[in-house]
Amino acid sequence: MWRYEALLPIDRPEGVSRAAGGTPLVRSPGLDEVAGARVFVKDEGESPTGAYKDRGSAVAVPHTIATGDDVVGTVSYGNMAISTAAHATSLDRECVVFVPADIPAGRLEHIARYEPTVVQVDGDYGELYGDALDLSERLPIDVLVSDAPTRISGYKTALFEICESFAPETPDVIALPASSGGFASGVWLGIRDLERAGLIDESPRLCLVQTAASDPLTRAFEAGATDPTPLSPDETGETIAHSIGNPNPPSGARALAAVRDTDGAVVSVTDDEIRTATRQFAVDGGFCVEPSSATTLAGVSRLADRGEIDADESVVLVPTGTGFKESGAGGTDVSTEKVRRDDLADRLASMLPA
Amino acid sequence: MWRYEALLPIDRPEGVSRAAGGTPLVRSPGLDEVAGARVFVKDEGESPTGAYKDRGSAVAVPHTIATGDDVVGTVSYGNMAISTAAHATSLDRECVVFVPADIPAGRLEHIARYEPTVVQVDGDYGELYGDALDLSERLPIDVLVSDAPTRISGYKTALFEICESFAPETPDVIALPASSGGFASGVWLGIRDLERAGLIDESPRLCLVQTAASDPLTRAFEAGATDPTPLSPDETGETIAHSIGNPNPPSGARALAAVRDTDGAVVSVTDDEIRTATRQFAVDGGFCVEPSSATTLAGVSRLADRGEIDADESVVLVPTGTGFKESGAGGTDVSTEKVRRDDLADRLASMLPA
Repeated sequence: MWRYEALLPIDRPEGVSRAAGGTPLVRSPGLDEVAGARVFVKDEGESPTGAYKDRGSAVAVPHTIATGDDVVGTVSYGNMAISTAAHATSLDRECVVFVPADIPAGRLEHIARYEPTVVQVDGDYGELYGDALDLSERLPIDVLVSDAPTRISGYKTALFEICESFAPETPDVIALPASSGGFASGVWLGIRDLERAGLIDESPRLCLVQTAASDPLTRAFEAGATDPTPLSPDETGETIAHSIGNPNPPSGARALAAVRDTDGAVVSVTDDEIRTATRQFAVDGGFCVEPSSATTLAGVSRLADRGEIDADESVVLVPTGTGFKESGAGGTDVSTEKVRRDDLADRLASMLPA
Repeated sequence: MWRYEALLPIDRPEGVSRAAGGTPLVRSPGLDEVAGARVFVKDEGESPTGAYKDRGSAVAVPHTIATGDDVVGTVSYGNMAISTAAHATSLDRECVVFVPADIPAGRLEHIARYEPTVVQVDGDYGELYGDALDLSERLPIDVLVSDAPTRISGYKTALFEICESFAPETPDVIALPASSGGFASGVWLGIRDLERAGLIDESPRLCLVQTAASDPLTRAFEAGATDPTPLSPDETGETIAHSIGNPNPPSGARALAAVRDTDGAVVSVTDDEIRTATRQFAVDGGFCVEPSSATTLAGVSRLADRGEIDADESVVLVPTGTGFKESGAGGTDVSTEKVRRDDLADRLASMLPA
């Protein structure tokens, strides 16, 4: 991503922050039939901590350090926490991660690997976004929330890379999972940079996909609203797509504007569709993605069914995180058979085509 | 890696095989003190299935298909199995994975995600390497073992990328984990290609690191032998570095020749050293690596202590696989504190520098 250093607010850092970005974009014909379009995959799971969040942390963490705050913080118990902690520790800075009191053990372990100070907050975790901004004002800590401007400026490099891979063409559609709206905001910033520079004529349509368990952006998009209405606890549910599902997305208004500006769409998908799409990513594409990333395939398939994407259009799916951090969520059926070593040749011969 | 298409035995494929390689090489000063040298990290964990094995599968699997075998197989219950299954399924080919009868459930789940035919073999798993070659001769299946020539040709692209990143300099040392010797063979092939082309004057010294629990290459290197002696079960032990530790490495002779030809070394490290190095990779470098990859840091540290690597020499550590596939192995200590949301500001103020 440091190929675009001139368009970022800091100089190229050393260490793990230098390793962020530069993920591959590949044509993936095995997914065409499911998606109903010509599929390209921009695999953000191939990042230092396995998620696109590294693009944001690689800019935001060194920026915080350069501008004088001693301590970096974040409000997350998922990929953003892992990424922020990794980037801070590699630059020898203290990191405070605010997680909910009931964080699952497996997720805590991924975060703890980088040895940040982990604070389990007893109370309404949703309110911590506001608390964090307040604490950053009052104390020598910079809590990098999901829509920190430096974080979002890092995300635009994903768009630059996609467009550079396609040049001189541009893809018809880019499909992203959406939660806080931060990634969509960054991608939109990138589109506008390229438009202003005269490097693209027509913008790709931005399609955002949410989990039906918590989809304030989809509701606002369908209602024609410019701002999402925060969802109350009884309007949200459990979902396997736990990396997304923010009921009160701080960058929601910008995400909605990005979609409308690019003639895109916002769509929700169910956990059943997400399970199926996670499996299809693996079995038809060879990609191990987390459930929240599989939403992109399910969402594009819905939009194609509705006639909003044509079969000959190029669609870039952006799986934002690897599936290797979690087990079980993909609904994998494990069926094996036991064979004695001496019987292997016979058994294999009966299995294989003649 | 397809930048080097002209030096590979197949044309650039589509799908996940196109996404292999192209991993970042970054200067990682946080690791210098531990390593005792100037550290660069070539993070092979940033691969489609999280391991360098994808470079081999990306060449070997399409090559098998192009040359007529209907079914792809592999003998592995780790990264090679995951990678081979992913590449085969993305090209719509059947894959048979031979695993031991007592495979741990977590590893089976990672493999099963790509829905290969999983055969649990009851019998001496170590003998399956020979069985696989025999079955590949007799049946319409191509079992891609660790030293399949097409797999090894893919590995040389890691060396090309490292040397291109350093050009016009060359790194002093490249440190790899070693098990079957396949990766070292591939890297050596790459060195010889560049030497023949006149692109490098002096080869980097290849340093291979083994787990002390199973280190036939270290023993052979220290004994001055050209071939490793297979270790019997009572000469090997349990290790957290389960991706390495082949007691009878098929590419062992080539790996030893590569080390001697480049004036390198082979060294073994204990599980305690591996645990410490896994933590250092994360906390000092920001990289989440699997224990078998952390051996590179522990091994280089040993060689520096012995005076075989100087503090001002450039050393490329190649973590071959991500640590995100496993939990618990890194010996992470998880310590957190619970704070009521209302007390957060006070607690934080007492924690932070004045």
